[in-house]
Amino acid sequence: MLDNLPKKTSIIKTKEKWKVSASTNAKNCKNYIRELVDNLVLEPNPEKQVIALSLGDPTVYGNLQTANEVVEAVLDTVRDGACNGYVPCLGLPKARKAVAKYLSRDNVIYEEKDIILCSGCSHSLELCITVLADPKKGHNILIPKPGFPLYRTLAENLGVTVKMYNLLPEANWEIDLNHMESQIDEDTAAIIINNPSNPCGSIFDYNHLKDILDVAEKYKIPIIADEIYERLVFPGNVFVSATSVSSQVPMLVCGGLAKRFLVPGWRMGWIAIHDPIGAFENEIRTGLCSLSQKIIGSNTIVQGALPRILECTPQTFHDGLIDTLYENARIAYKYLSTVKGLEPFMPQGTMYMMVKIQMKNFPQFSTGLELMQKMMEEQSVFCLPGDAFGIPGYMRLVITIPKELIEEACKRITEFCGKYFMEVQ
Amino acid sequence: MLDNLPKKTSIIKTKEKWKVSASTNAKNCKNYIRELVDNLVLEPNPEKQVIALSLGDPTVYGNLQTANEVVEAVLDTVRDGACNGYVPCLGLPKARKAVAKYLSRDNVIYEEKDIILCSGCSHSLELCITVLADPKKGHNILIPKPGFPLYRTLAENLGVTVKMYNLLPEANWEIDLNHMESQIDEDTAAIIINNPSNPCGSIFDYNHLKDILDVAEKYKIPIIADEIYERLVFPGNVFVSATSVSSQVPMLVCGGLAKRFLVPGWRMGWIAIHDPIGAFENEIRTGLCSLSQKIIGSNTIVQGALPRILECTPQTFHDGLIDTLYENARIAYKYLSTVKGLEPFMPQGTMYMMVKIQMKNFPQFSTGLELMQKMMEEQSVFCLPGDAFGIPGYMRLVITIPKELIEEACKRITEFCGKYFMEVQ
Repeated sequence: MLDNLPKKTSIIKTKEKWKVSASTNAKNCKNYIRELVDNLVLEPNPEKQVIALSLGDPTVYGNLQTANEVVEAVLDTVRDGACNGYVPCLGLPKARKAVAKYLSRDNVIYEEKDIILCSGCSHSLELCITVLADPKKGHNILIPKPGFPLYRTLAENLGVTVKMYNLLPEANWEIDLNHMESQIDEDTAAIIINNPSNPCGSIFDYNHLKDILDVAEKYKIPIIADEIYERLVFPGNVFVSATSVSSQVPMLVCGGLAKRFLVPGWRMGWIAIHDPIGAFENEIRTGLCSLSQKIIGSNTIVQGALPRILECTPQTFHDGLIDTLYENARIAYKYLSTVKGLEPFMPQGTMYMMVKIQMKNFPQFSTGLELMQKMMEEQSVFCLPGDAFGIPGYMRLVITIPKELIEEACKRITEFCGKYFMEVQ
Repeated sequence: MLDNLPKKTSIIKTKEKWKVSASTNAKNCKNYIRELVDNLVLEPNPEKQVIALSLGDPTVYGNLQTANEVVEAVLDTVRDGACNGYVPCLGLPKARKAVAKYLSRDNVIYEEKDIILCSGCSHSLELCITVLADPKKGHNILIPKPGFPLYRTLAENLGVTVKMYNLLPEANWEIDLNHMESQIDEDTAAIIINNPSNPCGSIFDYNHLKDILDVAEKYKIPIIADEIYERLVFPGNVFVSATSVSSQVPMLVCGGLAKRFLVPGWRMGWIAIHDPIGAFENEIRTGLCSLSQKIIGSNTIVQGALPRILECTPQTFHDGLIDTLYENARIAYKYLSTVKGLEPFMPQGTMYMMVKIQMKNFPQFSTGLELMQKMMEEQSVFCLPGDAFGIPGYMRLVITIPKELIEEACKRITEFCGKYFMEVQ
């Protein structure tokens, strides 16, 4: 193959000076959250301990720990010493089988061949976007707004255009289906849906999922379902995987251990291939397999421990996590509901709460970003601005931190908003 | 940014049938070894146990185990529970510092800021190629022949052309510098060098490295130094990092725990930025940092344990590994030196031995691949054909397997070659 390349025979000149540029690819690799945060002036009040409600990492404050059974499974795998070598790029067979079993539901049965283990859910998303969307064909993908900014980072880095469809705050952050449909064009290669939602904390019900898949079906566009927050739902809500909705739509489901098992640093993600009519048979399975060879998946200790992690973690652990998150959510919601100028959205699950800032009531600030800088300066409380997710005028609170800190943070937010709130007609 | 994109206003048609194609990117992601091996007819002799001399994984047969200190460091990190969350994309600061210390030598001092932790050395290589080579500018990179096929997989997947420079078997697999220089053109963005070498088992000495860097300096082309087999050298040889050679050439050095610590599955790789004149200051450091955000690095348990792994693994462990590999290499070399039609190259280090097959003495086989298929069929011994590394007529033996199996494999190879060898004028 190489021998067929045109050969340059000209003698090139030596150079006097070093000049090394980064590739277009590297320059186009943007972290939208960091760009935003780096441009803020974040100087906390030295008299108050900083409370970071910004980091989507449940382990930061130490109040949430993974289950003992998870730890023991990993310890035994390390001691055993049998999982230190290379495993197939798609993952250790017994670990893939365990994920298949873990994700299988009444009407959706996965087999080992349907599971690909990845280096975290970010890697899962990267592989899914890469295999489906072709920059050489001018493809675009649809992503939610507000939504997790990594979708855009990954797509644009590949040269794939993103088009955003709106979520409707007033309709519990459901997808604006008309808007989504209007964004579809002949070059749309995939639709990313994220349920449960980061940053919204919302859960799609069966009927809404059905409506979404009907659109996908109509235009024959595959779905990438980011379900990393699967089963992290509060009482009264039910998690329905998009795959459970009777449908012909082929889907790549992204998930992992990060959130439900409280080990985001372990980088154990997966892709589950849901392909009811065989649309992925010819090329997509092969393509994913090829792409998985580039960096050879995730840490083999965690892969080796995965069957026990998924099978032996007791329900009491999962229930305990939900209890904690739900209690924190209710505390924050209760506090912030009474704050004039704020409109919190009670989450149905996940680790986040969205809060609308009625900017007209804070005329001293021309943007939500300014308001949040000031809140950091005076109250040492920082949340991620909605701008990070494409929705200015909102802020996202992380509800994984200890109860006392949630309460303290809410008190400070209340004090801050009370100071600057102004009634308007 | 998105709002500036041209909006399509035409209403597109719904589709009747699903047709999902893999992207060009996915289709172009090739595993050259697997393509080759999949096309071979590999049916072992049912009466003989298969001996795989093909897998570059030292853990396969269980005879080589990582050090107790490594295991203990990981066990304590898991028990401690403090390394389960996200860490910065570039890696845990104390782990980066530990790698900096581990790699620093007399005249090359690294700091924490010079180290990026990656999900295995494959990921390190991917980031380095991605940041330096720009497909939009028609860039190419130079890679060794014979060489590790992943360089080509990663580059071509990015749309970067590879140009191969020859290694000289007769000169201990040193680089044919004239050939390398002739391959350089105005679009050459980087030269990958691999020392110690997979598949050759050779070590470059100081003077040869100096000559290589002189060429890079002349044309101002940065080096990607794949040093994953660093310090895996046999008695009488010395490992010299390319960075230790007095030079102004900026380099990205790729390495990791995989080989020297016998844990390839753990996916702990790194990039060390060696930049004596600041050529990487403006763009490359930033670019690597941006790219590292896409999948957020390697497993945090291993990152947490890394300082102890690098500092506390006793020299006796490293010496023991060298002793084993060296003994196996000598056994294989001694046996195969006496086999008519074969020309083994005594390795100076690594885990491999190259053997030239004098095809003219085996006229029954038109290619080395055919010969090796037959050897599997009759003797149940399989080595990787040189074709996998771009050099037909050779085979690569892995020397990590137990001594008894090396001996048994050599006996069978001897028997096989004796059967088919024919004298020629």
